[in-house]
Amino acid sequence: MTHEALSPDLEAVIARATTAAPHLATTTANQRARALVAIADALETASPDLVHIALRETGLTQARLTGEVTRTAVQLRLFADTIVDGGYLDARIDPADPDFALGQRPDIRRTHIPLGPVINFSASNFPFAFSVMGGDSAAILAAGCPLIVKAHSSHPDLSDATAEVATRALTQAGMPEGTFQLIHGREAGVQVLQDPRIKAGSFTGSIRVGRILADIAANRPAPIPFFGELGSVNPVFITADAITERADEIATGYLASVAGSAGQLCTKPGFAFIPAGSALPQAITHNATDVPEHRLLDPRIAKSYDERRTAVLGTAGANPLIPGGIRFDDDGQGWATPTIIAISLDDFRTGRDTLLEESFGPLSILVETPTGTDLAALMPEFYEGNLSGTLHISEAEATGETDNAPQLRALIAALANQVGRVLFNGWSTGVAVTPAQQHGGPWPATTNDSSTSVGTAAITRFQRPVAYQNAPQALLPEALQDTNPLGIPQHISPAGQSHHWGTRWH
Amino acid sequence: MTHEALSPDLEAVIARATTAAPHLATTTANQRARALVAIADALETASPDLVHIALRETGLTQARLTGEVTRTAVQLRLFADTIVDGGYLDARIDPADPDFALGQRPDIRRTHIPLGPVINFSASNFPFAFSVMGGDSAAILAAGCPLIVKAHSSHPDLSDATAEVATRALTQAGMPEGTFQLIHGREAGVQVLQDPRIKAGSFTGSIRVGRILADIAANRPAPIPFFGELGSVNPVFITADAITERADEIATGYLASVAGSAGQLCTKPGFAFIPAGSALPQAITHNATDVPEHRLLDPRIAKSYDERRTAVLGTAGANPLIPGGIRFDDDGQGWATPTIIAISLDDFRTGRDTLLEESFGPLSILVETPTGTDLAALMPEFYEGNLSGTLHISEAEATGETDNAPQLRALIAALANQVGRVLFNGWSTGVAVTPAQQHGGPWPATTNDSSTSVGTAAITRFQRPVAYQNAPQALLPEALQDTNPLGIPQHISPAGQSHHWGTRWH
Repeated sequence: MTHEALSPDLEAVIARATTAAPHLATTTANQRARALVAIADALETASPDLVHIALRETGLTQARLTGEVTRTAVQLRLFADTIVDGGYLDARIDPADPDFALGQRPDIRRTHIPLGPVINFSASNFPFAFSVMGGDSAAILAAGCPLIVKAHSSHPDLSDATAEVATRALTQAGMPEGTFQLIHGREAGVQVLQDPRIKAGSFTGSIRVGRILADIAANRPAPIPFFGELGSVNPVFITADAITERADEIATGYLASVAGSAGQLCTKPGFAFIPAGSALPQAITHNATDVPEHRLLDPRIAKSYDERRTAVLGTAGANPLIPGGIRFDDDGQGWATPTIIAISLDDFRTGRDTLLEESFGPLSILVETPTGTDLAALMPEFYEGNLSGTLHISEAEATGETDNAPQLRALIAALANQVGRVLFNGWSTGVAVTPAQQHGGPWPATTNDSSTSVGTAAITRFQRPVAYQNAPQALLPEALQDTNPLGIPQHISPAGQSHHWGTRWH
Repeated sequence: MTHEALSPDLEAVIARATTAAPHLATTTANQRARALVAIADALETASPDLVHIALRETGLTQARLTGEVTRTAVQLRLFADTIVDGGYLDARIDPADPDFALGQRPDIRRTHIPLGPVINFSASNFPFAFSVMGGDSAAILAAGCPLIVKAHSSHPDLSDATAEVATRALTQAGMPEGTFQLIHGREAGVQVLQDPRIKAGSFTGSIRVGRILADIAANRPAPIPFFGELGSVNPVFITADAITERADEIATGYLASVAGSAGQLCTKPGFAFIPAGSALPQAITHNATDVPEHRLLDPRIAKSYDERRTAVLGTAGANPLIPGGIRFDDDGQGWATPTIIAISLDDFRTGRDTLLEESFGPLSILVETPTGTDLAALMPEFYEGNLSGTLHISEAEATGETDNAPQLRALIAALANQVGRVLFNGWSTGVAVTPAQQHGGPWPATTNDSSTSVGTAAITRFQRPVAYQNAPQALLPEALQDTNPLGIPQHISPAGQSHHWGTRWH
């Protein structure tokens, strides 16, 4: 935890970020918006070259990678508009109140300021959208924090190429030196996270690594917030009526969601609970098409998936509805096709310790539940926290007026209690980047469930509130000035209200 | 960390809170508002009896304690209105968008739900406002979380009496059993904090104990958020022109702020930086009145203050401008009068390790800085995080147009960077309970600086966001329904905007 341990290069990286912090904090939202859009434009211009590198390093398809560049650019542009809109500052103004219930109230105004230098550990499975210039990076820069990205070891060349594009765009947009820097190597990442000049961390990856990093952040002499988006098995619940209504549609949607990107998505549906004896398993085998082999991201992930798949298949009662498989090529890369397993609720419970762990790859488990199973009560047996939980219900059930409505409402409440996003009649893969999105959930879905890692609310992770008391107008941040020069939402609580507080409730 | 270690009583407490959680989560804001107001009314009715106990257990004055009951009641009433207003839910609605930039966007809606059972470790120095039914408790109940309060050992009888009043009010208001429970004993508090059924913790107290509890929360098998409000020395900076303009006013304000409640306030100004050779020290000795002896809260605090005072007085260069003192009575209670010490900036820097620690009691240090001292650069030498930082400036300086305006702006930015609240021409003691208040700050002022422990924003600590995707209207929480039956603020992002994101910034 001492500075001595830092290499001169790493010391220079942190020093540059530290020097940049006050300058970046005083850039205007418009300046930062221009910089974000400049990165977005530059990434789209460089897309063919970047995708070319990504194809080699990740094994993901051209269509997926090209689409991901677009998503990454759209994210950056959305954050540009978000910071100029200014609602994210949650500006509050309480004018002085001589008649306040507890004696004279001073003028108090509150806004948010950037935390300072942040390290973002990028993900393997989204080489653009959750990597060097992905959602976390966009949120960090939008908030006005200097950004140090620790490149993921599975796509180092793409990380360097992306960083070059972004650095050029940021420099041309006039952002201070040290606004963004890329580092490589796990040890370097840990050293940066431990450094007292770093004020927050973000991460997308495994529970194991996320926990190690979260513990480092929490146990520093000065602890810092650490936002890790970790593992999830994303349970799905499908009612008998939904299956009766549209078994084929559900089967094809499920198969596509499990197979997409070879199942290497944190929102892949890992478990689907269906009534025993339903027509869905047959519809799944019937609709299973020949999915071409898909390379897994790297040999380590492939090996881990192979082991998990073998363990799941070896669980008592596991019935391989679609066996699928994985083979290794001469470079050690793994090539997988989807595996769908059916199991009874009893066997699921017996094998729970083996089955519950996330299988990062194209594998999903159908759990067949006897009539009358209390599905809401089943949730706490599960992973405590998940990124998503999904319900497939019939048109009639959607009215909330069927006989099973109380059970459905209880299940929805149980899901809301344990996941970040509750879906209806859809699939959890494909997380829309929008203001209302919530990509999070209780541990172990995340290390910190107070915010989201997708959508505009993600920016709040990298800010902290500050109040100004009786500040002269000339010395207030623009966000809090009476003339509102930024034209942002200001929540004003007029004087004279305090004596009425609570009076409605007698 | 296992259930076995729990006594039957403690197990029953946690079980009741756990059982209450889903019921409390589905109470309406109006129901919870009525319950909060019922507690407020009951506390005010019981005020004479409660203050009688508090006088004996805390040594605080009748005026202070009576005022604190009022503050506690006002806090509860403010939270009643806050939850009915509904803005705290940050309800967001993104309608489905077939033309979304990344392909069709589903309907996504986001609100906040309560975390579940929370333990609040109450404070010694505010036996009402930060104790059993204080600000943290009000925020926890307002959020819809079952509350377990760990009573502070320095006022056990008052804690029991307050709990009795609150429990009766909650029961009469129809809140579920287990909504609020009181426990005693540090070990019991730690066991509750470690229990997997507990979803968050809050605390007001020392850095040492706060750190122990924060580490327990962070290192649980499933980590939980822990909001500790810890130590602070609240630096004050006073300009030469402000002293020229109103030396006597500043001197009397400073003395009152240091002496109030015998300095046992987390916002007591611990240090005031003034220009060397100014008239302020003389104004302070001139305005010092005979402050009567004030009992410190308990013998442990008195002993600790005595030691700190001796250490500070023994620092090289420490000049006792007002010596003050402390004496112990036969019960081991300490009785103190204010101590004001002056020291040069050089000697302050030499003695920094001794001086910087918080002196919890009526002691403050004037640091005399040579002409031309870069005050903004001095801040990082200081405690990294503080609850407040104060500036006293002249009328001319308040215009932001004096020659020293750049230095003042740099100092304000440095303060904002390290404190939760920046004050002008006032004193940091006395924290108004209002929507824009921010009582927090970077470590070690708090263990988690994402929110505040005073003011309406405090409620956000005990909620987490949940999104609903394509949910039928009948199965959505009321906060997110199109008809908006709660009449709360809903932030709607209409379809069709995504292609315009960022286009302004080319």
